[in-house]
Amino acid sequence: MSVTIKDVAKKAGVSISTVSRVINNSKPVSNEIRQKVLQIIEETGYTPNPVARSLVMKKSQLIGVIVPDISSFFIGEILNGIEEIGKMYAYDILLCNTYGSLEQELRYLKLLKGKQVEGIVLMTWELQDKLIEYLAEIEIPVVLINRNTSKLDIPSVSIDNFQASYDMTNYLIKHGHKRIALIRSNLDSNAFCQDQYRGYKKALEENGIPIDERLVQFGNFKLENSYEIVKNFIKEDILPTAIFATSDTMAIGAINCLLDHGYKVPEDVSVTGFHDTKPASFYRPSLTTIRQPLYDIGAVAIRMIIKKINHIEVHEKIVILPHELIVRKSTGPAPA
Amino acid sequence: MSVTIKDVAKKAGVSISTVSRVINNSKPVSNEIRQKVLQIIEETGYTPNPVARSLVMKKSQLIGVIVPDISSFFIGEILNGIEEIGKMYAYDILLCNTYGSLEQELRYLKLLKGKQVEGIVLMTWELQDKLIEYLAEIEIPVVLINRNTSKLDIPSVSIDNFQASYDMTNYLIKHGHKRIALIRSNLDSNAFCQDQYRGYKKALEENGIPIDERLVQFGNFKLENSYEIVKNFIKEDILPTAIFATSDTMAIGAINCLLDHGYKVPEDVSVTGFHDTKPASFYRPSLTTIRQPLYDIGAVAIRMIIKKINHIEVHEKIVILPHELIVRKSTGPAPA
Repeated sequence: MSVTIKDVAKKAGVSISTVSRVINNSKPVSNEIRQKVLQIIEETGYTPNPVARSLVMKKSQLIGVIVPDISSFFIGEILNGIEEIGKMYAYDILLCNTYGSLEQELRYLKLLKGKQVEGIVLMTWELQDKLIEYLAEIEIPVVLINRNTSKLDIPSVSIDNFQASYDMTNYLIKHGHKRIALIRSNLDSNAFCQDQYRGYKKALEENGIPIDERLVQFGNFKLENSYEIVKNFIKEDILPTAIFATSDTMAIGAINCLLDHGYKVPEDVSVTGFHDTKPASFYRPSLTTIRQPLYDIGAVAIRMIIKKINHIEVHEKIVILPHELIVRKSTGPAPA
Repeated sequence: MSVTIKDVAKKAGVSISTVSRVINNSKPVSNEIRQKVLQIIEETGYTPNPVARSLVMKKSQLIGVIVPDISSFFIGEILNGIEEIGKMYAYDILLCNTYGSLEQELRYLKLLKGKQVEGIVLMTWELQDKLIEYLAEIEIPVVLINRNTSKLDIPSVSIDNFQASYDMTNYLIKHGHKRIALIRSNLDSNAFCQDQYRGYKKALEENGIPIDERLVQFGNFKLENSYEIVKNFIKEDILPTAIFATSDTMAIGAINCLLDHGYKVPEDVSVTGFHDTKPASFYRPSLTTIRQPLYDIGAVAIRMIIKKINHIEVHEKIVILPHELIVRKSTGPAPA
C-alpha cells in the first residue's frame, strides 16, 4: 500500500497541513519541524500526489519542448542544454517531435496547453502563418529557437545567421575562391535562410564577384540531396572551387559525392558546413564550419522560459549568441 | 477567459455529463450528439482540464522514457520509434535524460511515478543492483531496452548480442584475419557486454585461434577513447589486422587514429562497428557493422508498455529482434 500524507503527518507528530506546507514550501515552518517531516518522507518513501498538488498549487513544474526531429545531431545538442538547465530549476520536460509538420505543431501546442505546462520552447523549421496566429493567442510563455518574426512579441534565441554566412563567404574569398556555391535551405519564406543568402551575397558583392545563380541551390538538409546537387554540378560541368553548405550534414553529402567522383577535398574543391555538430570533427576530412553554441542556445531558451514563468523581467527579447568560424581540413586555397 | 465544459454543454444544448462522456469516451453517446459536441469543442477551442480529468479517469495518457543520453545517435533513432508509436496510441512521452548516473535514474523513476505516468520505458548503460531493487517494487509497468536480468520479471527488447558478436568475428575470420582486436564496453558487470565477449571468444576458439588478451580492451563508447586504444596498439607494436569495435562511434575513433598514423583502412587494418547508426553509412570509409533495428526496438518497447497498461497479455517477455551484418568499405581481406 502506498504511503499517504496522513501517514507522514502521524509519524512526524504534526498536522497534515504542516506536511503540506513543507512539501509545497507555501508557508513558514520551523526548521526543526521541516527536518523532521523531510526525514519521515525519506523513510517512508512518500510521494506527494502531483495531480492533487497541482490543483492546489496551480503549478505543474512542466515545460513543453517541441522540436522537428529528436534524432537530428543539431537538435540533440540543443536538447542537452534545455534538459540540464530545466533539471537545475526542478522543471521536467515534456518532449514532442513534430517531424516539421504544421499540423503536428498545432496539435502539440494544444496538447501541451491541455497538460498545463508552464511554458513552451518551440523549434520549427518554418514559422508558418497559422503557427504565428496560434502562438499569438496561446496565453502560455513561449520561447522560439533559431526563428523569429516581427509579427509576434515572443522572445527568441539564435545566432546571427547573416553575419555567420558573411564571415564564411569572406573566409573562402580570402583563400582565393571566386566560384563559390551555396547550398542553402529550401525554406525561402524563412527569415533565417534569407539571412544566410544575404550574407553570402553581400560578401561576394563587396569583393566584386558576380553571383552565378546556377551555383545557388536549395537543399533540404538531407545528405542525399546535397550529394545530388554536387553530382549535378559535375554533370553540368560547372563544379565550383568551393561549396558553402548551410549544414554539416549537407557538407558531408557534398564531400562524399566529390570523393566518389575522384575529386580531392580540399585540393580540388573546398567544402564548408554550418552548426559544428559532432560529425564535423570526426568526419574525415574534418569540416570547416560555423560553430553555433548549441548547448548554450538550449540553456538560454529554457532560462528565459523559467524567468517568464516566474514573472522575472526578460530584458533582451531577441538573444543573439556568438558564433565562431572553425577552420579544419575540408577547406584550403583555391586551386591555381 | 477560457472556455469551460459548462459553456460547451450550453452551446451544444446537452448536459455537462454528456460532454464529459464524449470527451472521455466513457459511455455510449449517439453519433449525432457526439458530432455536435465535437463541433462546439472545435469552435470554442475548449481544452478539457487534464488534471481534473485524470482524477476522474485515473489515466494520465503519459509514458515516461528514461535514457542515458538523448544526444546519442543510437538513442535518437530508438526514440523516434518510441515517439511515433506512442503518438499513434495517443500517449505522450515524458522524456528524462540521466547521463547514465544511477542517482538520476532513481530520481527520475520516483519523479515519473509522482507524475503518474502509466508506464516507463527504461534504457540504462548498466543495470545496477540498486536500480533492480527499485524496479522490483515500482508498481508501474516497465519495459527495458537492451538490458535484462534474471532477477526481475520485467519485459525487455534487444537483439541477440552474443550471436551478433559471434557473426561479426566469424566474418572477419573468413576474410583471413587471425589477429582480431575487440574494443568492448567498460561495463564488465553487464550481461550484454559479457555476451559480446562470449560471442567473440567462441568464434575464435572454434577456429583454433588463441585469444591475445592484450587485444581485448575495455572502451567507454567515446571516440577519443578508442582512438587512444589504437594509438597504444601502434605504440606497443601489436597492431592487429582487424579491429571489432562494439559501437560505430568507437569504430570511427579507431579508423581516425589509423588514418592519422598513415595506415590504410581496410588495406592495412579492417575495422567494424556495431549498431548501424547514421554515421556508419556517411563516414568514409563507410562502416561494416551490425545493424540493430533501432526504430523497431523503440516501437516494440512502447507497444509492450501500452499492452501492459491496457492489461493485454504480453506473451514474449524477452523480445529479441533480428540483427543483420552490413558489409561496407571499412573491412577487407587480411593483408598477406
